[in-house]
Amino acid sequence: MAAGNAVDPFWMLYSIHLNPHVLNILEKYRIGNLDPKDNNDVVSDMSDPFANEPTRHPLLKPASEKPFNAEAPEYILVENFLTPNDIFYVRNHLPVPDIQVDTYALEVEIEGKSKILTLSLDDLKKFPKHSVTSTVMCAGNRRSEMHKVKPVKGLNWGAAALGNATWTGASLREVLEAAGLSENEIDKYQHIQFEAYDTDTTGSPYGASIPIWKGVDRRGDVILAYEMNGETLPRDHGFPVRAVVPGVVGARNVKWLAKIIVASEESQSHWQQKDYKGFSPSTDWDTVDYSKSPSIQELPVTSAICQPMNNATVDVKDGKITAKGYAWSGGGQEIVRVDVSCDGGKTWHVAKFDFHDANKSPQHWSWTLWSCDLPVPKGTNKMEIIVKAVDSSYNTQPELFENIWNLRGVLNNAYHRIKVNLK
Amino acid sequence: MAAGNAVDPFWMLYSIHLNPHVLNILEKYRIGNLDPKDNNDVVSDMSDPFANEPTRHPLLKPASEKPFNAEAPEYILVENFLTPNDIFYVRNHLPVPDIQVDTYALEVEIEGKSKILTLSLDDLKKFPKHSVTSTVMCAGNRRSEMHKVKPVKGLNWGAAALGNATWTGASLREVLEAAGLSENEIDKYQHIQFEAYDTDTTGSPYGASIPIWKGVDRRGDVILAYEMNGETLPRDHGFPVRAVVPGVVGARNVKWLAKIIVASEESQSHWQQKDYKGFSPSTDWDTVDYSKSPSIQELPVTSAICQPMNNATVDVKDGKITAKGYAWSGGGQEIVRVDVSCDGGKTWHVAKFDFHDANKSPQHWSWTLWSCDLPVPKGTNKMEIIVKAVDSSYNTQPELFENIWNLRGVLNNAYHRIKVNLK
Repeated sequence: MAAGNAVDPFWMLYSIHLNPHVLNILEKYRIGNLDPKDNNDVVSDMSDPFANEPTRHPLLKPASEKPFNAEAPEYILVENFLTPNDIFYVRNHLPVPDIQVDTYALEVEIEGKSKILTLSLDDLKKFPKHSVTSTVMCAGNRRSEMHKVKPVKGLNWGAAALGNATWTGASLREVLEAAGLSENEIDKYQHIQFEAYDTDTTGSPYGASIPIWKGVDRRGDVILAYEMNGETLPRDHGFPVRAVVPGVVGARNVKWLAKIIVASEESQSHWQQKDYKGFSPSTDWDTVDYSKSPSIQELPVTSAICQPMNNATVDVKDGKITAKGYAWSGGGQEIVRVDVSCDGGKTWHVAKFDFHDANKSPQHWSWTLWSCDLPVPKGTNKMEIIVKAVDSSYNTQPELFENIWNLRGVLNNAYHRIKVNLK
Repeated sequence: MAAGNAVDPFWMLYSIHLNPHVLNILEKYRIGNLDPKDNNDVVSDMSDPFANEPTRHPLLKPASEKPFNAEAPEYILVENFLTPNDIFYVRNHLPVPDIQVDTYALEVEIEGKSKILTLSLDDLKKFPKHSVTSTVMCAGNRRSEMHKVKPVKGLNWGAAALGNATWTGASLREVLEAAGLSENEIDKYQHIQFEAYDTDTTGSPYGASIPIWKGVDRRGDVILAYEMNGETLPRDHGFPVRAVVPGVVGARNVKWLAKIIVASEESQSHWQQKDYKGFSPSTDWDTVDYSKSPSIQELPVTSAICQPMNNATVDVKDGKITAKGYAWSGGGQEIVRVDVSCDGGKTWHVAKFDFHDANKSPQHWSWTLWSCDLPVPKGTNKMEIIVKAVDSSYNTQPELFENIWNLRGVLNNAYHRIKVNLK
């Protein structure tokens, strides 16, 4: 059983848990086998909760099918400053909800005030239209690299669990004003909670929260988006409305937005309290205490090589090869330098910026796409390429995964290293 | 000659440049020796520009005497959450100016407006009084560690070129409002420049600037301070008024403040344009282009061990020793974890916070003082202790100085490592 009911619908929703490791744990609790005639549990709805998912682009490689989580191959990411919608990474925690525009409602609640503002999609569209170009990245991006050092639990993401898009919608700041939140009341609250329309088997919604200052700050740029790159927001990205919280981890950019609550407390959801937090490399599943670490909000500086991809064979031209990739930092920090080495860090080549966020400080929400020509000494047939980025606070990346390893495999921002064969 | 006049006053002001390395460079330009009777250069004032310096605490170890630059021994730093004024590190670029309170004037200019606001110290004290507790750190803190990897140019700071104090004064935001800057004009400008009363031999003042958003933001907390830890601001720390820019490198916390200019351009001072910038490890004095790097503003996350000090002999008690130190990050980021290792990073111990900034995000301006008990395996007589900190954006420190080395030896935030003898 699960949550007081038959376990079967649980397995259907969280199929990632129906694996030998979990069955092995359960095996030691077996006290006997139920006689089939005693099994009175009636599972009323055994239809697949994932039966109504959208069609996806074939380039999206699933890290899990149900719920759907997928990224494009790294090489394609650097072809566009704005990632096309259909190859933008998808991170779903639950089935994609089937929302009808004409019945869609977004509630806005301010704790301690009796009036709740309820907005239809049309109501939301009456607010001034704002566009923000922002990179959204999963906290687990590049987890597969950390996993190689020592196994971690989580989706085995490559380096493409991020994308950059222009998000258009209403300003959260202005919607909160309309809901009755005034500037001089802000200090009474601490967090802005988001609840979504995607729910688990018990009906609990996906939820997350951000610190209140981020939502009310003039330079926070939080958007309640109904468009992505000029198109209607796709179902996989939160149709009809999602929160876009620039500079902050994907998990707080809540999709299929149902409710906004200005609150004194953080969201109490599983994903805010028991997931998406960092720990010391020496913390294991016996010692972990989720209450001791803050929820991930702004992400640290990172970078990756997208072209060539790891283990590719590359033609050397005029004694050189070219590497291309992305660099990004959370919190609106600008990428100020990308260093690339092909001799193990003895020499660092400063990369050229092909696309760079032209916003003012501290609102650098977009990634930087870079390229770098690397000299190949004659007769070299294998090479390791390393990249690290520096942001405007002059934070840089740690060298190795060993010292940032954490049991959930998040915040994987050590130097990106790929091996290539040369011909 | 220097700047069109006899070189002698220059040597007196910048005595650090009167060294064999510089004389050696000059030697190759010698075209002959002047006959003493042809030397008509009259040096009118050969009095020592440093004759009127304040008396300093004997614990301040000078990194240079003229101008005076000094830090306390590391061990004493962690004794107080608020660093006592007389052992707070001193970073002077020029002689300490001798300012009389009754003639002191602070000018506030907004580019494009004809009226300049001129404030006496009494005028400034009529503004609402604000206090902010903030760590101020030199960009060169811990330079001596980077220098050991490969020589860099600059004062040979240990790990104590920082301090934490409560600064009291007027809010820059409110003073700018009084000078006529309105909220909706802010986007016309980009920078807030500070000019100081300390000047070089040509009369040019020390100067620096910060991005405008930092000075006008409700959560920026920039103070025009006339008190330090409840006392009148000491002469070495900017008497009678200095800028305190929380979360931002010491060099922009301009002392002996003479003028504030809201401008479209950065300060054009040497210290903003040709100093206090970071570069790639492969950039040398032949290839450096200062226009290519942004001026340092917010500082990256760092930490250091203050007790025991490097090469100390420590008594092992109950199979343990205790390490103490500080951790801090720029930009108002909170320190969320400090990891300490005494086995080369195989095991990381999470340090206890003894003093921690209780401010709200994103206004964590003070350092965190930590301590950590470390197990000593029997028979160990030497040990290396390593520390790294993690801030609320989950940025962490780079492992090694090699990969962050830069020719000026700034931003020295690699893991801090000390060796101790055990008995």
